[in-house]
Amino acid sequence: MKVCLKDIADFIGGIITGDEKIEIKNLAKIEEAEPGDLTFLYLPHYDKYFPSTRASALLVKPGFNKSRNDISYIEVSDPNKAFFKLVRKFFSPSFPLEGIDNTAFIHPDAKLGDNVAVGKNVVISEGCRIGSNVKIFHNTVLLQDVEIGDDCLIFQNVSIRENCRIGNRVIIHPGTVIGSDGFGFEPDDNGRVHKIPQIVNVIIEDDVELGSNVSVDRASIGSTIIKKGVKVDNLVQIAHNVVIGEDTIISAQAGISGSTRVGKNCFILGQVGLTGHIEIADNVILIAQSGVSKSILKAGTYFGYPAKDIKTAYKLESHIRNLPVYAKKISELENEINYLKTLTDKKPSE
Amino acid sequence: MKVCLKDIADFIGGIITGDEKIEIKNLAKIEEAEPGDLTFLYLPHYDKYFPSTRASALLVKPGFNKSRNDISYIEVSDPNKAFFKLVRKFFSPSFPLEGIDNTAFIHPDAKLGDNVAVGKNVVISEGCRIGSNVKIFHNTVLLQDVEIGDDCLIFQNVSIRENCRIGNRVIIHPGTVIGSDGFGFEPDDNGRVHKIPQIVNVIIEDDVELGSNVSVDRASIGSTIIKKGVKVDNLVQIAHNVVIGEDTIISAQAGISGSTRVGKNCFILGQVGLTGHIEIADNVILIAQSGVSKSILKAGTYFGYPAKDIKTAYKLESHIRNLPVYAKKISELENEINYLKTLTDKKPSE
Amino acid sequence: MKVCLKDIADFIGGIITGDEKIEIKNLAKIEEAEPGDLTFLYLPHYDKYFPSTRASALLVKPGFNKSRNDISYIEVSDPNKAFFKLVRKFFSPSFPLEGIDNTAFIHPDAKLGDNVAVGKNVVISEGCRIGSNVKIFHNTVLLQDVEIGDDCLIFQNVSIRENCRIGNRVIIHPGTVIGSDGFGFEPDDNGRVHKIPQIVNVIIEDDVELGSNVSVDRASIGSTIIKKGVKVDNLVQIAHNVVIGEDTIISAQAGISGSTRVGKNCFILGQVGLTGHIEIADNVILIAQSGVSKSILKAGTYFGYPAKDIKTAYKLESHIRNLPVYAKKISELENEINYLKTLTDKKPSE
Repeated sequence: MKVCLKDIADFIGGIITGDEKIEIKNLAKIEEAEPGDLTFLYLPHYDKYFPSTRASALLVKPGFNKSRNDISYIEVSDPNKAFFKLVRKFFSPSFPLEGIDNTAFIHPDAKLGDNVAVGKNVVISEGCRIGSNVKIFHNTVLLQDVEIGDDCLIFQNVSIRENCRIGNRVIIHPGTVIGSDGFGFEPDDNGRVHKIPQIVNVIIEDDVELGSNVSVDRASIGSTIIKKGVKVDNLVQIAHNVVIGEDTIISAQAGISGSTRVGKNCFILGQVGLTGHIEIADNVILIAQSGVSKSILKAGTYFGYPAKDIKTAYKLESHIRNLPVYAKKISELENEINYLKTLTDKKPSE
Repeated sequence: MKVCLKDIADFIGGIITGDEKIEIKNLAKIEEAEPGDLTFLYLPHYDKYFPSTRASALLVKPGFNKSRNDISYIEVSDPNKAFFKLVRKFFSPSFPLEGIDNTAFIHPDAKLGDNVAVGKNVVISEGCRIGSNVKIFHNTVLLQDVEIGDDCLIFQNVSIRENCRIGNRVIIHPGTVIGSDGFGFEPDDNGRVHKIPQIVNVIIEDDVELGSNVSVDRASIGSTIIKKGVKVDNLVQIAHNVVIGEDTIISAQAGISGSTRVGKNCFILGQVGLTGHIEIADNVILIAQSGVSKSILKAGTYFGYPAKDIKTAYKLESHIRNLPVYAKKISELENEINYLKTLTDKKPSE
Repeated sequence: MKVCLKDIADFIGGIITGDEKIEIKNLAKIEEAEPGDLTFLYLPHYDKYFPSTRASALLVKPGFNKSRNDISYIEVSDPNKAFFKLVRKFFSPSFPLEGIDNTAFIHPDAKLGDNVAVGKNVVISEGCRIGSNVKIFHNTVLLQDVEIGDDCLIFQNVSIRENCRIGNRVIIHPGTVIGSDGFGFEPDDNGRVHKIPQIVNVIIEDDVELGSNVSVDRASIGSTIIKKGVKVDNLVQIAHNVVIGEDTIISAQAGISGSTRVGKNCFILGQVGLTGHIEIADNVILIAQSGVSKSILKAGTYFGYPAKDIKTAYKLESHIRNLPVYAKKISELENEINYLKTLTDKKPSE
């Protein structure tokens, strides 16, 4: 990369203060930037790096105190957004996987679209149908009758079991498992449990991204469905028969139990757990580590275990922090009442 | 599938109301059922789908209000159980893996029983012994001296390290790792830690099922043991030297730390964490996300962090929800006492 | 193994009581030991196995009550440490992987040091550089330009994406993924989110060990860095741009969100969650399941969610357990005040 600061400002619609002719060689974090780098400031607690950053140019919000004059500035309303627009423009990664590797196994019955790249030791079983412009990396396994749309990126060591359906522009990171058996058992009268066959599939719609080491289970009846635009981080558990609504975001290590339905545009933060057979409305935010044991039918932000709306949760948390004060007060009141009692007890005898 | 309703009722021991001659083509969830489908009702919050379901027949409990007469009903004492009996009868999945693939590596010294199917790129190392009727899917790796019993199903991309022993009728889902090193280190006097060799193995007894992306560690002394009939969901951590008692069920993302012993017939729900070197009695239920830092020596249900018996936990939770009330009351009492004090203080001067 | 007890005592610097000539055949846990085995006692709750252990010899602390005389004893100041010194001396595992397997793919452009062992179906892509004395087990995939130092052990089914750099003496367990894309998205004005390219890499320094099924993400700017001597247990999430300080230990299923910096010599216990963009000082201990939503700038032990210093957390927990008492007391005080009020109300009319 070698771009003149003026061209960058024009591209992101920003206003330069400083030398518009300098050449930017790289994008970097403010604390790691070198001369020639462009960086950005948006979260206040990174301001501390401003006095010492070695960056040549800085994206800042309008009104930023441009106190150093050895740096050029571009003022732009959302420096974060502008920065990632630049990342996308100048650094979009390409993956040098081309053609069908001769160590891959593709069942003669499987159908592949145009421009499909298949890595080493990949297994594409009977009845699979793959769209166009798909890359499937090394050692990934598709069991029979798996369907994959166009423009997908399936990384290495991914496992997709039989009959699962993947939409277009889906990205699946390494180690992820689609369509393992739902955790469904029936107890007998002797306290032993018996497996319920998990015979249906997982449906992953368009524009979904699944992180690494994610598990998505199939069910005994009905599909597990991850709807359009959903983004799932690493190590997430999605149980059998779960339905995740469009554009919902699920952070790392969250877990959603069987038959639960999550609405659209929800944001489920890290390590959140949802019990089974509940419903979460659209536009619900669940703060990290929350535990949800009942349906949430109203949009809003929820927190804690059991999860409460955030105002209640914060109020209770501040009461909990006050408990030592309350305890002390109760014992003081006790003393005062005892004292008052001695007074009033004495009164009659006066 | 095409089965007459009467044959279904006979098979599950139920009583028909409606047309016993209709043909059932599929089993489905009540909200997704199509004409020709059989479905079931058992959890009350699915009742809302009853008025609109398109199913042709419905498994219900005796006494169900059969208000729609365009549907046939089978009354049966446990519709859930009956339904899965049907799933098992008519839909048990088969896996079309046969024979030893020629891309698999089987060490000449390894011993395989009858009717073993080995997928592509599987590695079966020196000294391995595999029973009969075992299927090992693509890209799975067994290091040396692994033992596997009869009738096992080992899915793709599974890793089993040296010396581990797997019983009969064991199912292991993709991405699961058996026998990785226990997390054992020793600090030296400079605050650096040094690895303790983890030299023993993992023993998995008969009828165990392990979900996808599970980790089960080996120890430096003594085996990690998962006893008969244990079922483990996805993304569970089982540390070195842990012993899990017979028929215990462990839900997704739970974690059990080193040297902890869990009893028989326990039910450990999702995201529960157990510290190391403790004991859990038989028949203990740990509610989701609980954290257990001490041994639990009595059967029962426990909840919270630190985990308490469920009655105590629920009582404390309701007290916590009452904290705003208590705080208000304390301050009211304070006011009243102050008022009483002014009265009594005045008294003497009256 | 067959070692005379005297040689063992000399090696660990201990003092024998009993028969110094007996031959030790194996090391074992106290509750599982057989005649001929050496075991050890260090945690008090294992004392219960002392009366019944079948071990021939026992490592104990000085002053231990050696009440059984059918056992030989070695007194040593730290029996635990001494025991693992023996494990290391007599049982260090070796891994019988040698040479480059002919099913492995090694790009002609990749550079391998001396004495590198590469297992079956391994993929080593263009531009990779591997040091000496490295073992890479079966079905592991390195994408392009991955660098690995000397004396590393990379187990099977590991995925390392492009450009990641691994130091010397690093151990990576099966199923672990290095360099999957950070979870970075930008919302547009319609509530849909768009991927931010994650173009940098993961740097893992010397003497790091990563457990099985771990996920370590790459970032859009700046590297994700795991510094010298860090030990990471199974199923841990390390997000984009995280920096983990030297010799920090992270237990199973913990998760560290994007751009968070953890100090040196920290100990993060199981299932702990850290939010993004915070800093954790050196020498911080985070008790299991804690949730950290703000920077911790002072060494110490922290617990709970939100995490508090341990003294505060324990005090609050004991107040919570006292809530039923407080509630009862409040209502008693209320009654007493009401009674006092009737007295004082009456007073004027007396």
